[in-house]
Amino acid sequence: MALIVQKYGGSSVADATGVKRVAKRIAESKRAGNDVVVVVSAMGDTTDELIDLANEITPLPPSREMDILLTAGERISMSLLAMAIANLGVEARSFTGQQAGVITDDVHGKARIIDVTPSRIQAAVDDGAVAIVAGFQGVTQHTNDVTTLGRGGSDTTAVALAAALNADVCEIYSDVDGVFTADPRIVPTARKLDRINYDEMLEMAASGAKVLVLRCVEYARRYNVPIHVRSSFSAHPGTMVMNYEPAEGADEGADVMEQPIIAGVAHDSSEAKITVVGVPDVPGTAAHIFEVVAGSGANIDMIVQNVSAAATGLTDISFTLPATDGTVAMTALSENQGDIGFESLQYDDTIGKLSLIGAGMKSHPGVSARLFAALSAAGINIEMISTSEIRISVVTRSDQLADAVRAVHTAFDLDSTEDEAVVYGGTGR
Amino acid sequence: MALIVQKYGGSSVADATGVKRVAKRIAESKRAGNDVVVVVSAMGDTTDELIDLANEITPLPPSREMDILLTAGERISMSLLAMAIANLGVEARSFTGQQAGVITDDVHGKARIIDVTPSRIQAAVDDGAVAIVAGFQGVTQHTNDVTTLGRGGSDTTAVALAAALNADVCEIYSDVDGVFTADPRIVPTARKLDRINYDEMLEMAASGAKVLVLRCVEYARRYNVPIHVRSSFSAHPGTMVMNYEPAEGADEGADVMEQPIIAGVAHDSSEAKITVVGVPDVPGTAAHIFEVVAGSGANIDMIVQNVSAAATGLTDISFTLPATDGTVAMTALSENQGDIGFESLQYDDTIGKLSLIGAGMKSHPGVSARLFAALSAAGINIEMISTSEIRISVVTRSDQLADAVRAVHTAFDLDSTEDEAVVYGGTGR
Repeated sequence: MALIVQKYGGSSVADATGVKRVAKRIAESKRAGNDVVVVVSAMGDTTDELIDLANEITPLPPSREMDILLTAGERISMSLLAMAIANLGVEARSFTGQQAGVITDDVHGKARIIDVTPSRIQAAVDDGAVAIVAGFQGVTQHTNDVTTLGRGGSDTTAVALAAALNADVCEIYSDVDGVFTADPRIVPTARKLDRINYDEMLEMAASGAKVLVLRCVEYARRYNVPIHVRSSFSAHPGTMVMNYEPAEGADEGADVMEQPIIAGVAHDSSEAKITVVGVPDVPGTAAHIFEVVAGSGANIDMIVQNVSAAATGLTDISFTLPATDGTVAMTALSENQGDIGFESLQYDDTIGKLSLIGAGMKSHPGVSARLFAALSAAGINIEMISTSEIRISVVTRSDQLADAVRAVHTAFDLDSTEDEAVVYGGTGR
Repeated sequence: MALIVQKYGGSSVADATGVKRVAKRIAESKRAGNDVVVVVSAMGDTTDELIDLANEITPLPPSREMDILLTAGERISMSLLAMAIANLGVEARSFTGQQAGVITDDVHGKARIIDVTPSRIQAAVDDGAVAIVAGFQGVTQHTNDVTTLGRGGSDTTAVALAAALNADVCEIYSDVDGVFTADPRIVPTARKLDRINYDEMLEMAASGAKVLVLRCVEYARRYNVPIHVRSSFSAHPGTMVMNYEPAEGADEGADVMEQPIIAGVAHDSSEAKITVVGVPDVPGTAAHIFEVVAGSGANIDMIVQNVSAAATGLTDISFTLPATDGTVAMTALSENQGDIGFESLQYDDTIGKLSLIGAGMKSHPGVSARLFAALSAAGINIEMISTSEIRISVVTRSDQLADAVRAVHTAFDLDSTEDEAVVYGGTGR
């Protein structure tokens, strides 16, 4: 008998029909002999509707009250789901984040989990009941105040509970069939991966793949929780995110066969590029610039420094960052222009980032040459480059990004070669 | 500096505009130098919408889950209200029933308050903040499960908190201006009472007046909490519900001047009448009938036993009960027809009950004669009568009930004699 933690997102429980469909799937898992703990998000657009309500009241809602407001969403979905499961003759009990023992710090709106003490969940499971837990929420350690975990919070709740309960697997259900070699909306020939290791999944998530958020994968890697990413709209097996290093002494050829060079191609069009023009090419200037940017709260991603023009002793420094951080970073740099001593600033939010990810590239030379050749053949100019051991990222024009993804996907033999079913369901969220 | 507990119903916070209007009133009370604790219901039709959602899932939702679902409503209104107050520059913190220390038994759906330990509320007040508390909800003593208090639960939360905090007054805001001598929708000349004592208010509530529920008045009387019933849509003073026995040794004439004979006329058209026909007129039969009815869970109100027909030794017994209990009572009686030995059953849900209430009638003979004369003059037949020390109730045909209320209201000089403002606001809920 396995202990399974299942997480269902808002699109899976968007309405009563969705809630009943999910309940049926849960009841089947339970009747198959498993212990089942379920983490559920708010129904469909509930969270957005609650945010709209708050905005009708005030442009700057206090974050403590905002958390109380938003957690109403999971309260609704979790109780309805428990009712639907009970209606199928399977005992179910719902629990808030507090009741489930999800303890967080007190940073309202984006709290971090600091402990999980799921004694009530374990007791419900021991009683033979399905435990339904509100995702996305916790309670502060000392003041007993309600917190929310921020974006991807429900996935993180599920992985954290799976770790605390020592579950066999954490199944993350959404409206896509798994992790794909590229976004199927851009690359129709993208293939679903049967499995991907934590490091690759981390790079995918960090590079724009939306299927899992970074913190959830980080948590899973730290506690070695296997994640099964799958669709709540189909019975297809999805993608297993887990460690699968080859056993020691295994044949190297078999290893290579097992582990493809490239896991996938991620893309991200949500970044912007700031260029600091005419920077004195003296030691400490770059450090000064990035201290100022970091101080504004902006997250810097890629950095390029041009070769200095010998005649002037000036250079240009470019970096990328989330476009949503653009205003604060530009403002901070402007205010420090005198101190830093640059000539001007340029802001460009028409860039796109393509990332090629694969643990296999560590041991395979020539990956970057093949990448650049593919982009060149497709007539796509590379503006910036950054690499890690298992990732190469390039910045292009945003209007060339889709073409770039398709070209690279093909160049690395990722295209589906047969009539593999690529199934999407639901609301497209 | 007074400590005021204010309760706002769903119609007062039906939308963002309502929430802001209520917030302004709360901020004014706070700025006038008072400590303010607010109890709030779910917005407008939220509770009904949540019930509809549950009914889409299952016809018989488990009551524990239903309570979790319904308490989402107050979670939304309380956080929005705290935001709106903060937006006016007054500190506000919202608290769930659990955080406010509202401890209940474990009867989900209609839990009773067994203790109130409002240490967090007191701390917020001591900090100078307005405390906003979710009405209608509590938490079980041992299992830490969420409960709801049933109909009128928010009013009861407010009075219980006022008692526990030793507040100076509990202000109950709704969309009516106070307690009236009769329902102004039926009697346009009804007058708002400046005050009414607990006993009278109890009889009014038990006799169909909707402005306060019985349990809330019972709680207030037990702990001697003065209730101020008023409108959130106007600044008019409302009705004080409180003890105002004359001081010992006070002049009796003054006493009579102060205390009118009659407080008001209540009506109730939600009852039905069951007649058990052809009952053997032997000792124990009536007891048997009412044991059976009570065993079905039905609440019996008035009872009349006809004079026995000497020739047959048979009699008829009639009683009234809430029409919603009609089916279970009729079923239970039918199933026991053989044991009890009656001939047949009659069911009539076209009855109306009129109640005349006034502490002053204790010392004034002739009240019932005047009541019967007024009804007779209006051509209204009386089918049943019951009395208490401060109340006389009669049953009429339901289609004559409104005429009966108007006739009695006039006969006891309750009609407004001048252009008194009778103001209603809002949604008519």
